Amino acid sequence: MAFRLALDTMGGDYGPGEIIPAAIYALKKHHDLELQLVGLEDVIKPRLAQLTPELSIRAQVIHAPEVVAMDEAPSSALRNKKKSSMRVAIEQVKKGQAHACVSAGNTGALMAISRYILKMLPGIDRPAICTTIPGINNHTHILDLGANVDSSAEQLFQFAVMGAELTGAVENIVSPKVGLLNVGTEENKGNDQVKQAAALLSNSHLNYIGFVEGNHIYSGYADVIVCDGFVGNIALKASEGVAEFFSHHVSSEFKKNLYGKLASVVSMPILKSIRRKTDPRRYDGASLLGLRGIVIKSHGRADRVSFAHALEEAMLEVEKNIPARITSKLEALLTRN
Amino acid sequence: MAFRLALDTMGGDYGPGEIIPAAIYALKKHHDLELQLVGLEDVIKPRLAQLTPELSIRAQVIHAPEVVAMDEAPSSALRNKKKSSMRVAIEQVKKGQAHACVSAGNTGALMAISRYILKMLPGIDRPAICTTIPGINNHTHILDLGANVDSSAEQLFQFAVMGAELTGAVENIVSPKVGLLNVGTEENKGNDQVKQAAALLSNSHLNYIGFVEGNHIYSGYADVIVCDGFVGNIALKASEGVAEFFSHHVSSEFKKNLYGKLASVVSMPILKSIRRKTDPRRYDGASLLGLRGIVIKSHGRADRVSFAHALEEAMLEVEKNIPARITSKLEALLTRN
Repeated sequence: MAFRLALDTMGGDYGPGEIIPAAIYALKKHHDLELQLVGLEDVIKPRLAQLTPELSIRAQVIHAPEVVAMDEAPSSALRNKKKSSMRVAIEQVKKGQAHACVSAGNTGALMAISRYILKMLPGIDRPAICTTIPGINNHTHILDLGANVDSSAEQLFQFAVMGAELTGAVENIVSPKVGLLNVGTEENKGNDQVKQAAALLSNSHLNYIGFVEGNHIYSGYADVIVCDGFVGNIALKASEGVAEFFSHHVSSEFKKNLYGKLASVVSMPILKSIRRKTDPRRYDGASLLGLRGIVIKSHGRADRVSFAHALEEAMLEVEKNIPARITSKLEALLTRN
Repeated sequence: MAFRLALDTMGGDYGPGEIIPAAIYALKKHHDLELQLVGLEDVIKPRLAQLTPELSIRAQVIHAPEVVAMDEAPSSALRNKKKSSMRVAIEQVKKGQAHACVSAGNTGALMAISRYILKMLPGIDRPAICTTIPGINNHTHILDLGANVDSSAEQLFQFAVMGAELTGAVENIVSPKVGLLNVGTEENKGNDQVKQAAALLSNSHLNYIGFVEGNHIYSGYADVIVCDGFVGNIALKASEGVAEFFSHHVSSEFKKNLYGKLASVVSMPILKSIRRKTDPRRYDGASLLGLRGIVIKSHGRADRVSFAHALEEAMLEVEKNIPARITSKLEALLTRN
């Protein structure tokens, strides 16, 4: 099959300067990939001038005169930016012109516009953001990451169903282990929402393994970790903070004096290998689950390496046909009840 | 002044095997320190046999025949373990025999028993756990970390008042910057509790700097970060998970082959310096704030290095007379209203 992805070329802190190089890299790597570069034509076209005809034919430019600002209120973007690159890219999915949309833009606006244009799957109240986390042993998929605050037990259950379908498909796991994020693993721990969600999960078809704690996120202990968007967002950003704290100290100690600089030369291959294995850019590309279509969010600070990974995540979800899988699982659940 | 601390010698995953060496280390380092080692006499006494008379005179053993298990329900510990090392240590504070109590034991039980024995300060509903976090530029104190779920806006405000008093005193800052943990820095972000707490903080005497995000925790951007115990606990444990993930990769890459081993020998002084600067044990010793007395919680997995730091945190809070400072601040607030 050919993969057709619509890119919000203007989104993210670095915009076309990083997104177009990522697009070109992906086109070179994947010969079955066709990209629709949505945004200001005058900005995009010159950056494609050097493409070979073979690449050029797979890179379509779609002009969109407006740009959603990174700090714009989602309601304002939805109401006032009807010709934004973000919205036009999402509309390509709605019209069946693209298999998926990828954006590094304003998360709230991407959620609101996607929901408005594509609509929710039946049985799902709100979209959830799901990302892949590297673990010591294996990956964990965690959702929700910032879209929703005060999720009800039923919504946490919906997140679990969607997360398990996504994870099962992309990681090739028959019955992914689902954990519920809490402040302890004992039954009496936590707030009412998690206790009620635990009851729903215990009585479900899912492979529910019980409560998990914050440190389980990076251990690979569960395949899917479910949480409220408020908690998930803060846990993930705290993790980014710790990672920055570590790399600050590693780099400043190795640069501190001549001996450190010498040691860093000797250790360069090792340090590079560590950096590669812990590089968050390799895990860029979060899914907006629960929509009637595939929308992938790349990190706001995504550079070309990050964004190229987000494109590959989109291709994987297209190949695995995630929304259709979630729909049929939800239909089975609704029929059973 | 002489510092008199009561130690729950039986608490923590490693118990007396790590706590007594930490105590001996602290006695050697601080000549104005007197310790009350509370727990099973038969276990403690043999471990003190080698002490010089000068140290021995400052290490009093107080027999307590019961031990609170690490996974025991707080209600059960409160009801059934009236002669536990934890409870007897807290009672030493209540009786004025010790300036503070330090325990690496069961957090929930420590909260419940401290609250029962020592009682809350007037104007404070529930105790909050506050810890120091290392930042790239300077320290941040964060609370609450697991004691309370579903904190109201008023309780978040109380946490802010207590956290600011503690931080101002121990870090010597006149007007510590207080941030409220949220999923974004814009005013419209977050759940109802944080929005209402933001309103209370904006109208207060505190140096409130607005919403902060998860990645601000490790940046030193705020001096005090306030959050619900559910969120704080998960953010902190997620951070521990990331730290373990990093150290796993660093150690496995340097051990992978002969070249890596050679590089690690060359880099040893640098790696040691990095480890020292990022060692969480240096920040062990969380305060249970809001009680009529000083109770310090050491990490459940505390070894002798961690526990010795927790002892120093206790000494610092005794010196700064934290509960009295919080009380007088609360009285000023109550009078004003």
